[in-house]
Amino acid sequence: MTPGANVTALEPADVARRVAGEMMLRDLASALLGIRLEFVDDKQVTVSMAITERHLNGHGSCHGGLLFALADTAFALACNGSNQAAVAAAATIDFVSPGELGEVLNATATMRVQGKRLGVYDIEVTAADGRLVALFRGRSARLSRAVIEGLKP
Amino acid sequence: MTPGANVTALEPADVARRVAGEMMLRDLASALLGIRLEFVDDKQVTVSMAITERHLNGHGSCHGGLLFALADTAFALACNGSNQAAVAAAATIDFVSPGELGEVLNATATMRVQGKRLGVYDIEVTAADGRLVALFRGRSARLSRAVIEGLKP
Amino acid sequence: MTPGANVTALEPADVARRVAGEMMLRDLASALLGIRLEFVDDKQVTVSMAITERHLNGHGSCHGGLLFALADTAFALACNGSNQAAVAAAATIDFVSPGELGEVLNATATMRVQGKRLGVYDIEVTAADGRLVALFRGRSARLSRAVIEGLKP
Amino acid sequence: MTPGANVTALEPADVARRVAGEMMLRDLASALLGIRLEFVDDKQVTVSMAITERHLNGHGSCHGGLLFALADTAFALACNGSNQAAVAAAATIDFVSPGELGEVLNATATMRVQGKRLGVYDIEVTAADGRLVALFRGRSARLSRAVIEGLKP
Repeated sequence: MTPGANVTALEPADVARRVAGEMMLRDLASALLGIRLEFVDDKQVTVSMAITERHLNGHGSCHGGLLFALADTAFALACNGSNQAAVAAAATIDFVSPGELGEVLNATATMRVQGKRLGVYDIEVTAADGRLVALFRGRSARLSRAVIEGLKP
Repeated sequence: MTPGANVTALEPADVARRVAGEMMLRDLASALLGIRLEFVDDKQVTVSMAITERHLNGHGSCHGGLLFALADTAFALACNGSNQAAVAAAATIDFVSPGELGEVLNATATMRVQGKRLGVYDIEVTAADGRLVALFRGRSARLSRAVIEGLKP
Repeated sequence: MTPGANVTALEPADVARRVAGEMMLRDLASALLGIRLEFVDDKQVTVSMAITERHLNGHGSCHGGLLFALADTAFALACNGSNQAAVAAAATIDFVSPGELGEVLNATATMRVQGKRLGVYDIEVTAADGRLVALFRGRSARLSRAVIEGLKP
Repeated sequence: MTPGANVTALEPADVARRVAGEMMLRDLASALLGIRLEFVDDKQVTVSMAITERHLNGHGSCHGGLLFALADTAFALACNGSNQAAVAAAATIDFVSPGELGEVLNATATMRVQGKRLGVYDIEVTAADGRLVALFRGRSARLSRAVIEGLKP
């Protein structure tokens, strides 16, 4: 092997981590909601969000839009994880139980299908007590550019 | 008519306005995102959100979760509008075009079906230039309590 | 105008009718279910299905899968209507009221969004008494071929 | 134990089998499409459908409505499996790859959530070669009656 040839030869899990880190840095909306990166590899992504007063809706539980945003962030990191930029085309969410003030929620994304262009990802939102809070299914469409230019899988 | 009999006899549109006003006051999540109430009657609800830097995702356009949250707020106001408390059971969103920094988006909710318990509402998210940004369809389930106790339609 | 120049210059509504007629001829599944073409132009498509004994599910009302199939047929005719072949990528259906034995149901498809490749269409399934039976939203993806070779809009 | 006390004390898996058998007998729509019961217990249901000429749509592959109907049948058997009658309230389907003439497809339903009234079920449609054909997610609502009167879990 020629010297330096392997400098950018990253494992898929390393690429996913680099992309997720970079996307979270740029993602001011996730920062506003207090969304934190918990785990990334090329198979799965987990992010978390602590429910504070500012996350509550008019009924006193976590705003459904913010539960969606938590799941959507995990989805975005997962469908961009190979460094091919992708955007959400559509998503469905089922609200199973309310998120309550003071809870920390996790959203874990798993790839179900990834074709050349379209992908389908399942995201589960769970509470620390193991309770299922929401089920999210996202459909992604790839763009023809990288998330991080020059980063090669 | 006996004196005072009509004190609480509000029109459906008035009830919807009172409920929406009260729910927005309690809704800290919508306040965090800068969501504002634009129009309410018993047929339709419109809310708006200006896209600032803090609404942007890792690709530099409005975070899909916040587009969803905008639509979800309009949905919540519409499905609670008769003062019977209701929650979102499920929703689907199609992302049609990105929301850009500096734009003000509107989300308008219209009732499609409202049975004794389950409802279906359509929400359109549009930009000031008339562009369709997202299509949202929400399914609601009524609880057995009022939003505002003592308020009668 | 040179002689013959206008031979294939069809109006968009004519193209939609030619495509719909051709697709229905080829569509043995719709024939099996008794689905009939009722109306086509470039804005809207309506198909119908009479509910017979063979359409019933284990609860004695029209099988939800066949309600979906009726709506899906209208969707297919609408999203292929410009003669660019397209397939369903995803769909959501809300079942509003059961379809009963002896009823004739209509499904009417309307385009909501049609980009270069992806489209979103809304389909309503109604009964003859005006009752809403189901709401269907379909997402289509265009292929790079025509439905009818040589037919030009 | 008194004699005869245990006559109707069936295991949950037995109840699910009895209910599924009874529902398939009554389900003329599934019979029309050639849908067959392959496996049932209280955790999972699998049904199958062989794609014949009469299942094809205008593009020459299995009509999406019939793929949906196959998944919907598995969903119905799963959400009625405890003998409390339930109906589909809504469903989403993602079409992943076409079903081809001559293939036998399986649809397997798994319960994700079952509350007192609402449930969420995931159904996968796969081909004999292991290929994923469609992902279906159904939301059910229970009625206040049994599927088979007198059958006790």
